[in-house]
Amino acid sequence: MRSDLAEGRYKTGDKLPTEAALAERFGVNRHTVRHGISALVAEGLVRTRRGAGAFVAATPTDYPIGKRVRFHENLIAAGRRPEKRVLALDERAATVGEAQALQIEAGDPVCAYHGLSLADGQPIAVFESLFPLARLLGITAALKDTSSVTQALSVVGIDDYTRASTRLTAVRATPTLALLLHVAEGDPLLKSSGVNNCAGGQPVEYGRTWFAGDRVTLTLET
Amino acid sequence: MRSDLAEGRYKTGDKLPTEAALAERFGVNRHTVRHGISALVAEGLVRTRRGAGAFVAATPTDYPIGKRVRFHENLIAAGRRPEKRVLALDERAATVGEAQALQIEAGDPVCAYHGLSLADGQPIAVFESLFPLARLLGITAALKDTSSVTQALSVVGIDDYTRASTRLTAVRATPTLALLLHVAEGDPLLKSSGVNNCAGGQPVEYGRTWFAGDRVTLTLET
Repeated sequence: MRSDLAEGRYKTGDKLPTEAALAERFGVNRHTVRHGISALVAEGLVRTRRGAGAFVAATPTDYPIGKRVRFHENLIAAGRRPEKRVLALDERAATVGEAQALQIEAGDPVCAYHGLSLADGQPIAVFESLFPLARLLGITAALKDTSSVTQALSVVGIDDYTRASTRLTAVRATPTLALLLHVAEGDPLLKSSGVNNCAGGQPVEYGRTWFAGDRVTLTLET
Repeated sequence: MRSDLAEGRYKTGDKLPTEAALAERFGVNRHTVRHGISALVAEGLVRTRRGAGAFVAATPTDYPIGKRVRFHENLIAAGRRPEKRVLALDERAATVGEAQALQIEAGDPVCAYHGLSLADGQPIAVFESLFPLARLLGITAALKDTSSVTQALSVVGIDDYTRASTRLTAVRATPTLALLLHVAEGDPLLKSSGVNNCAGGQPVEYGRTWFAGDRVTLTLET
């Protein structure tokens, strides 16, 4: 069932098959079906109404991973209300790994933008984006005025940027990530890390995002 | 460290920084560093040599998710030795969800190909691929002769096929998946599900793959 929900086979409000039908389909007894539905109810994916059965309460947010990276537009397109909460915004020195990703020197100053992305009020991802200050003078001030990376980059003269590389893996939620995402410690998260380049081909953003595995399905453009 | 390994910042054989350097970098004491390194050793990612320090023993396999889907070629390109173990190969009726993905009717016959993918002898993914029999007469027999989906499809007249849709999410390893992948139950897996179409645009394969989160990094072509 969880897999069917994740693959988008149900829409919010759809009625689930009866306990008897689910028991037959999965070759288990009705007690097991009831136990499974309780777990989905506890996670907010399913809601039951006495006498009426079980209904899909929420489906995972489809999040396209395409050439362009636009959190706000992506969520609007998926019929969700996007929201961002800034957790930290400061300037610091790049570590060796960060400098390598941004093609700058270790110790060079970067703007670090750390926050939480929500869809319809539910946390779906934690992100940390780094911007090379030497290439993007004023980016920190711009991000104080707008939570949108696209708008902030535009303010400092970057009108277009595209995904240069993206790497995806599955990791366990650390205590901090679990707290921010309202998941249990150890729950599976989809981790994306990638670099975005400006039109001139230089890296302007090195971003890492941890998506709550149950709530987000990344879809690839083809 | 695990994150640096997953992001490909180290190559196999690279020496890790000293315990003192790692303690400073992560702002923890040396006991914690030693504990962390032991965990990486237990997972086979790091090897220690008395007096010489710790070395990278294995790095996650980069697995490109592109327009074309070629397990064998992808792994060769990543410098790995690919291998497949067939767990089951049979014909059965498509469920409602499977039929929807393949654009056939529920109950229509499909060939189900279930197996394990290995890189350098290490399990990296469990896959289940379904092929619509009406469109691919003889596919089951072809897969008995070759473990390669590309070759089997070619035998039944499909010389080219491309990824029509791909959905990615993170899930917990079930007991069965954990056993097959040599990971612990509950460990994070990257789950990919997708449909491949033939040149004529009809679905020829509906595949689901569970990648061991620690051992595989999916990379997106851009």
